Amino acid sequence: MTVPAELLSRQLIAILEAWGMKGEQVEITARMLLAADLRGIDSHGIAMLPLYDDFRRAGKLTLNPEIKRVRETPAMALVDGGGGLGHYPSFKAMNLAIEKCAALGVGAAGVRNSNHYGAAGVYALLATERGFIGLSTSSVWRPTVVPTFGAEQVFGTNPIAFAAPAGRHPPFCLDMATSTVALGKIKLAALHQKPIQPGWAVDQKGHPLTDPQEALKAGHMTPLGGCPEMSSHKGYGLAAMVEILSTVLPGAFFATTRPRQHPDAERYNVGHFFLALNPGAFRDAGEFEEDLEQLIDTLHAARRMEDHQPVLVPGDPEEAACAERSRKGIPVPAGLAQQIRAIARASGAPDLLGQCG
Amino acid sequence: MTVPAELLSRQLIAILEAWGMKGEQVEITARMLLAADLRGIDSHGIAMLPLYDDFRRAGKLTLNPEIKRVRETPAMALVDGGGGLGHYPSFKAMNLAIEKCAALGVGAAGVRNSNHYGAAGVYALLATERGFIGLSTSSVWRPTVVPTFGAEQVFGTNPIAFAAPAGRHPPFCLDMATSTVALGKIKLAALHQKPIQPGWAVDQKGHPLTDPQEALKAGHMTPLGGCPEMSSHKGYGLAAMVEILSTVLPGAFFATTRPRQHPDAERYNVGHFFLALNPGAFRDAGEFEEDLEQLIDTLHAARRMEDHQPVLVPGDPEEAACAERSRKGIPVPAGLAQQIRAIARASGAPDLLGQCG
Repeated sequence: MTVPAELLSRQLIAILEAWGMKGEQVEITARMLLAADLRGIDSHGIAMLPLYDDFRRAGKLTLNPEIKRVRETPAMALVDGGGGLGHYPSFKAMNLAIEKCAALGVGAAGVRNSNHYGAAGVYALLATERGFIGLSTSSVWRPTVVPTFGAEQVFGTNPIAFAAPAGRHPPFCLDMATSTVALGKIKLAALHQKPIQPGWAVDQKGHPLTDPQEALKAGHMTPLGGCPEMSSHKGYGLAAMVEILSTVLPGAFFATTRPRQHPDAERYNVGHFFLALNPGAFRDAGEFEEDLEQLIDTLHAARRMEDHQPVLVPGDPEEAACAERSRKGIPVPAGLAQQIRAIARASGAPDLLGQCG
Repeated sequence: MTVPAELLSRQLIAILEAWGMKGEQVEITARMLLAADLRGIDSHGIAMLPLYDDFRRAGKLTLNPEIKRVRETPAMALVDGGGGLGHYPSFKAMNLAIEKCAALGVGAAGVRNSNHYGAAGVYALLATERGFIGLSTSSVWRPTVVPTFGAEQVFGTNPIAFAAPAGRHPPFCLDMATSTVALGKIKLAALHQKPIQPGWAVDQKGHPLTDPQEALKAGHMTPLGGCPEMSSHKGYGLAAMVEILSTVLPGAFFATTRPRQHPDAERYNVGHFFLALNPGAFRDAGEFEEDLEQLIDTLHAARRMEDHQPVLVPGDPEEAACAERSRKGIPVPAGLAQQIRAIARASGAPDLLGQCG
């Protein structure tokens, strides 16, 4: 099924409203989810609704949270998400960082008491809409990544996104988990009954797995690098950096230890971190964008390993997906469409995907 | 040869002064180089002197640069390094970021018109001495890293360092090149006549090499991840992020394109970026450090892959090296000691290593 963006947006809004979400939060949450779907980040758009529905049914999600600025200086802010989904407080926090950076050249914002915020990149991109550089990081409620030399999970996939305005090019946008691959890649291998690359996932003893079914059962992802010989300590170190920025700095829960202390809090108090930098504070008007254009042109023109595969720049695949999906609509697999339709019906929202055929 | 830190420092100072470096710049440059040697980062301490000497002899290094604050707001600064070594302007820039962050919770600083700055981590650690989080990134004058799907070098090893104060523990300190491994690891394999891990380096066509001699000859390093299947696009994306922060933002030269435009500038105008964050702006006094202590304790206590190898936290190996080398001195291989002695004699500095035996 291919669903026009506008219809998918209306379906998202209808379900969020049926769940009891109100006001601007509905529009922003739907916009951030749709942005992920448009950019081809299928795992972080409407495909998140079944998990959010689980959280909601388990009483672990505040649908109308009070979102508060709890600390502030002219250059930084700390936002309390009130125990709801992460999209709205993150949108507000990134916009606070942007406002402060417009005045002072740099602005930072943390969010605590939040939950899943979707795709990290969509917040970093908000900064580029104003001509600024944006950075976005998040912790995750569930640990899945095993540290170098370890045999149990300590971090989530702890994403980093970094975006910068690039003049006549679309923005540069790096949006990456600090794990070697996303769980989705292992699920895909399982579906196609193909072995996975050694180094994507490990067993209970920390040894590499190649059977995707075993990997899914173990749920032990590796940090970027994959194994000690390939410098997985760097991916692990980056995951720890993201945890410090997103959890320790704003005062959120560290996924591994905090649930032991707060048994009811298993899925609560995820944290995020945002930074905005104003190139206009460092360079004359237009210089930054011109230099970044040149850098991107150089990367695109780099000698290729294979003639048919150009060197890409972070953001290229997502921009291509966005252009195509804005025109043709967003592909929704049959299984997911069924889940969304069931969620709509169960919550009393109109079943718009059902009308889409 | 094992050289007491104090003697190594005096030798560094004597050579820098003999080269014509003056005032505080001598003391700070020597301190930053010695800090790398003390922390076991052998490639970025006194071992850099032969390269700096080459730069100097080629007329590509200003020994007494005028270091200027060229742009400033209460939250950021841009420093011009005057065409000299990177250590002193970087020290000044990080301290500017720290001062601004003390007042506003966040401070940023860029450096342009600089050169090699040694180990990225020593600048990030300056922030922790004041109880702050520090971030440090740098571009490199020479491209060595090949992008995913590419077959020629576009970036240097573009390091990222991130440090945070951790209460009763030494500071957390991630200090990493965004390449899979440092060139030194390949040199070591060549020395021991052992094959290298496929994925560390590639040939002129972008294909993995296992012969360390061939790898050194080709000089094509991979970005963290090593190959497309292991997500090298993430390491490449991080290298690009570092290039944008360190080169495009402060207005330095991009290693690949700028030398073509400025033939004399081959080794000039390296850029750096620094950020400081004040945990006290986000949390009550002591909360950040207490939470980071807990996080570090949890990582150290994680179940191990092998009983004899504990899970480490970024900074652990460097702290252990620092404790040992502060007591016992810094090991200097015979070949390097000979080079340093020759440099001292040629520049008219006292040959202090010669007295060390």
